[in-house]
Amino acid sequence: MNHRMIVKMLGRVLCLETVLVLVPMVVSICYHESPWPFLITAVITGAAGLLLSRVKATRSDIYAREGFVIVVLSWIVLSLLGTLPFLLSGEIPRFIDALFETVSGFSTCGATILTDIEGLSRGCLFWRSLTHWIGGMGVLVFIMAVMPMAGEYSMHIMRAEFTGPSVGKLVPRARKTAIILYLIYIGMTAVEAILLVLGPMNWFDAVLHAFSTAGTGGFSTRNASVGAFSSTYVDVVISVFMLLFGINFNLYFFLLIGKFKAFWKNEELRVYLGIIVFATATISLCIRASYTVFGEALRDAFFQVMAIISTTGLVTADFNLWPEYARWLLVILMFSGACAGSTSGGMKISRVLILFKAAQAELRRMLHPRSVNLVQMDGSRVDNATVRTTLAFLVMYMVILLLSTLIVSLDGFDLETNFTASLACLSSIGPGLSMVGATGNFAMFSWLSKLVLSFCMLLGRLEIFPVMMLFSPHTWKRG
Amino acid sequence: MNHRMIVKMLGRVLCLETVLVLVPMVVSICYHESPWPFLITAVITGAAGLLLSRVKATRSDIYAREGFVIVVLSWIVLSLLGTLPFLLSGEIPRFIDALFETVSGFSTCGATILTDIEGLSRGCLFWRSLTHWIGGMGVLVFIMAVMPMAGEYSMHIMRAEFTGPSVGKLVPRARKTAIILYLIYIGMTAVEAILLVLGPMNWFDAVLHAFSTAGTGGFSTRNASVGAFSSTYVDVVISVFMLLFGINFNLYFFLLIGKFKAFWKNEELRVYLGIIVFATATISLCIRASYTVFGEALRDAFFQVMAIISTTGLVTADFNLWPEYARWLLVILMFSGACAGSTSGGMKISRVLILFKAAQAELRRMLHPRSVNLVQMDGSRVDNATVRTTLAFLVMYMVILLLSTLIVSLDGFDLETNFTASLACLSSIGPGLSMVGATGNFAMFSWLSKLVLSFCMLLGRLEIFPVMMLFSPHTWKRG
Repeated sequence: MNHRMIVKMLGRVLCLETVLVLVPMVVSICYHESPWPFLITAVITGAAGLLLSRVKATRSDIYAREGFVIVVLSWIVLSLLGTLPFLLSGEIPRFIDALFETVSGFSTCGATILTDIEGLSRGCLFWRSLTHWIGGMGVLVFIMAVMPMAGEYSMHIMRAEFTGPSVGKLVPRARKTAIILYLIYIGMTAVEAILLVLGPMNWFDAVLHAFSTAGTGGFSTRNASVGAFSSTYVDVVISVFMLLFGINFNLYFFLLIGKFKAFWKNEELRVYLGIIVFATATISLCIRASYTVFGEALRDAFFQVMAIISTTGLVTADFNLWPEYARWLLVILMFSGACAGSTSGGMKISRVLILFKAAQAELRRMLHPRSVNLVQMDGSRVDNATVRTTLAFLVMYMVILLLSTLIVSLDGFDLETNFTASLACLSSIGPGLSMVGATGNFAMFSWLSKLVLSFCMLLGRLEIFPVMMLFSPHTWKRG
Repeated sequence: MNHRMIVKMLGRVLCLETVLVLVPMVVSICYHESPWPFLITAVITGAAGLLLSRVKATRSDIYAREGFVIVVLSWIVLSLLGTLPFLLSGEIPRFIDALFETVSGFSTCGATILTDIEGLSRGCLFWRSLTHWIGGMGVLVFIMAVMPMAGEYSMHIMRAEFTGPSVGKLVPRARKTAIILYLIYIGMTAVEAILLVLGPMNWFDAVLHAFSTAGTGGFSTRNASVGAFSSTYVDVVISVFMLLFGINFNLYFFLLIGKFKAFWKNEELRVYLGIIVFATATISLCIRASYTVFGEALRDAFFQVMAIISTTGLVTADFNLWPEYARWLLVILMFSGACAGSTSGGMKISRVLILFKAAQAELRRMLHPRSVNLVQMDGSRVDNATVRTTLAFLVMYMVILLLSTLIVSLDGFDLETNFTASLACLSSIGPGLSMVGATGNFAMFSWLSKLVLSFCMLLGRLEIFPVMMLFSPHTWKRG
């Protein structure tokens, strides 16, 4: 294990956090608020970051183990120090609450312990939404994009932070891949912010909602979330961008280089769009009775389907009060999430597809024991290792979900609250049903539940394996 | 596909049902009730059975495909005709209700649509519980035990009807294995009935509760289930026998031939007992506040833990009113079920173990890509095919559970009711939570939900694959 290299990378992450925290400081100065909470945070993270990144690494090699450890420790350190602005400003006075909110931000979950979001200062609101934006595409992918790193080793880090069952490089060099991804990400975020500002939103709300959509996070600047703007234009723009940010970013790269066929022939994308059409159609039929115009039911259904499947979790209608069919269909979407290689959470549709196909292949094999057990995606074979890893992912996902719900149950709230709170955190959705529904929040939970749910958010964002590695004795063996 | 052999076996199954239905006929004569519903049923099944079993099979070969088809069709035919006593007596006048009750009986689920069980005639009560007893060990295993069949082919049938990830023969000949299993089953049922009759139960109640426990079914003769007897003796006897019937019957064979080490060293058994101790201890602590004596909390906790993990579903305390921790822990036990090769439902503990170990092996492989991916049980390697099939089983289990809940949601009952009703049917438990809880029943559901839930019970009892096969076009191809 290359300990020095791990420490060095953590130092770089802290340096990045220092730069990040200066942005809300500027915002708070602009709005005549106190910049001190951010400045003090920047001094602490900056000092620690410079100290750690000066460590001399004798070797620069990073393998799978180091990649996992670097990513998980970075996210933990980032979240721990990210609580400082909330704590120092006194706007979230308890540490466990600040931790929950920060982890929820970076993991792009969007679950909140705040009962009055509009009471927060502009600086803190900006910091909350900025964590979504950075967490969405990845902290270390960002560092890789802006800092030169030794050759091919960086791929191991990318693999640990990126979402989906398998990670491909767009271009031969990992660093260039990171740059391309971030440029697409920045471009799309900018377009959304501009479109929003053309509607009834001011610049501040537009940028923060663009951050929130881009990271598929879910933090809003209003207590009533996007519903507060009561604008069909805003609803539609955000719905469409939630759809776009749920698509694999590699596909946008294909579009940029003119490979249109590869874009439209992508199986995961087709299934993703198919699910959206099915869910929107059946849910809008299911809720039409509560609306005078069917178009409004369609708009709200589309918005909430997108908010859940993209795991953003923004809200325009109280889906907790919708008929049971609509509620359960949303729960099913909470499991799947959107496409691999997007900023969304959940299991990812490509994993669900691989699982389906693996199960089908097993059925075939039971009938014809000598048949070849082939799982195919986009016309080419999915290798056995990927299939096995995906199945292991499902097992761990279910176990974590069941156990998290069990611990949260100790607080004594109802089953629906406990189960959907755990699922919403593990899948980075944000809101669940019942007490953690569209109009609810996570404030009433005990510190134990908040800790467990924060852990679930981290597990969900980093897709379980890297976090599990950290707790495996094998990882820390000499070698 | 050997069609004639399939028809011939269906004929034998109907002949068996004819004999079975004569037993409640005798009971109804003893209790001075009308024997006609049973006699007419016997005439119909007998005539159909004799007709079909006279079909001349030119070949006697049965392969995996035929094995699956025979078992699934047998269970469907058995259930369809098993509704006749309820319909002809008018005690369950609607067909969909009678079907639900009969499938629930044979599949050993124990979910009921009856609101007043005590209003049923003795004959019908006996028939209900008898279906549990036959369904528990298996209809075709019974036929194999009593009728000579061509050599090794019968193993394919046994494999399709038996529970667990892999089926081993106890002795070289499948028929002899079937006889041994049924002798152990009959012996244990008899001992339980005798022990119950030594307590406050009469012969009728004792035999029917023994049937219900042996098949891990859950039908009782009373509206308040076992709670109606208000006897700690009865509670403890039934709890212990639920535990015993949740153990792999192969292990009892080891005990009989003196292989005590193999019994105690069985990993699945140890985990099963471990889970029972953990669940009973924590639940009794959790519910102790509602009891004056801790022993009573312990007794009720042990009974309900056994009732759920063995998937019997008998009731002595309204666990629907217990604290959330206890309720959710019971839901988790609903997933696992007890040991493979027992009469219990659910996923089976050995499958859960294989899943855990496969996930662990994947974690190891991610750290050390060149390591061998070994899953071991009881000291020997679990072959890759079994691991893959188990993972495919989990995938289908989850998909069926989510989709069944979605369809049941259309009835508009609460999420907890819909979800636990589906889970309780798929895992052959019987009662769930909320409206289908300990004091509830399934009467209020629409015919569509009842049909879907009946299908879930069948899927659960036959462990999904055989039923899926029936709907696969591959199965019906010539060859």
